[in-house]
Amino acid sequence: MDSFNRINKYNILLASASIRRQELLKQLGIKFTIVSPSSEEEIIPENAYREGIAERIAMAKADSFTDLKDNDLLITADTIVWIDDKVLGKPADYADAFQMLKLLSGKEHFVFTGVCLKTSSMIKVFSSETLVKFSELSDEEIRYYIENYKPYDKAGAYGIQEWIGKVAVERIEGSFYNVMGLPVQRLYQELKKMCLEIKN
Amino acid sequence: MDSFNRINKYNILLASASIRRQELLKQLGIKFTIVSPSSEEEIIPENAYREGIAERIAMAKADSFTDLKDNDLLITADTIVWIDDKVLGKPADYADAFQMLKLLSGKEHFVFTGVCLKTSSMIKVFSSETLVKFSELSDEEIRYYIENYKPYDKAGAYGIQEWIGKVAVERIEGSFYNVMGLPVQRLYQELKKMCLEIKN
Repeated sequence: MDSFNRINKYNILLASASIRRQELLKQLGIKFTIVSPSSEEEIIPENAYREGIAERIAMAKADSFTDLKDNDLLITADTIVWIDDKVLGKPADYADAFQMLKLLSGKEHFVFTGVCLKTSSMIKVFSSETLVKFSELSDEEIRYYIENYKPYDKAGAYGIQEWIGKVAVERIEGSFYNVMGLPVQRLYQELKKMCLEIKN
Repeated sequence: MDSFNRINKYNILLASASIRRQELLKQLGIKFTIVSPSSEEEIIPENAYREGIAERIAMAKADSFTDLKDNDLLITADTIVWIDDKVLGKPADYADAFQMLKLLSGKEHFVFTGVCLKTSSMIKVFSSETLVKFSELSDEEIRYYIENYKPYDKAGAYGIQEWIGKVAVERIEGSFYNVMGLPVQRLYQELKKMCLEIKN
């Protein structure tokens, strides 16, 4: 297909250890190579809020890639949960995960994923916002989820594609795949646009 | 877990040939048996609109099950797409699928899933509504999708969990799994409620 052909003229590099992001990008139908991010540690930037946090972390993840070749296009991303004017990253342990899910229970929160596209000559950053409404979760349901799914690698301690996303997510407003970690529809549009701009 | 134990006191029967519904119900973590619906043919009822159509078809699918045992709980469901004040069911052929996707391209539509819960002594019907916004699709993208994914078993000729859901769905409002064919969060709540009412 024409849009694949155009995008695939780039050597697309995904710098993410997240299996979910790798799967989502694969399902877009474009070819790419997985490269190791310099660091998976996500330091929450100071004086940043909401999507600004996710965008700045995504950019920081791209920072270490300073030797991109002419044809390389690097993708980095970061996902955060935002509730009650504060950010939830990945839980440190069981108690932390429990506390996060207790906080999300019965309430609305936002998920922001920041995405950074970088070539040898330019950088583009964008983000996507999804509102997620959780139903009330019992302590037993929270314990069941943490024990069986161990969501320690997930911002806000949950995966919307897992059991908890099926029993507890009443509604969302925005992109579902953004909550999983990559706003694929927006990314596909941005890639198509970039390839048009450069190749024309 | 307590809620599983209560729900699993019922002998849950899912009357649906849809692999997606079977998978979603399985992922809720409750036990069930798949039974054959009397007919998979979905006749659009007259003088029905929006969720009323999906609810009436779901009820019709439950009609033929007249010999439920005391402990049986039957689940039937139907999903429709609603756009420009008319209903889209499953496409008849390639041309029909193409026309449906051309109609959805660049616009908002609604997805309604009606669910019917039936025991030997009662019937309950409910439905869930999700708004879906498609981005503009080129003819080439529509052809690529139909040829590679053959969406002839899907209302509106698309699966949100497939390639097209990743490149073309800009946003949704409501339940994602409802668009896939089963509003699992609502179903889980309804099952918990029913089991409480009956067992207390």
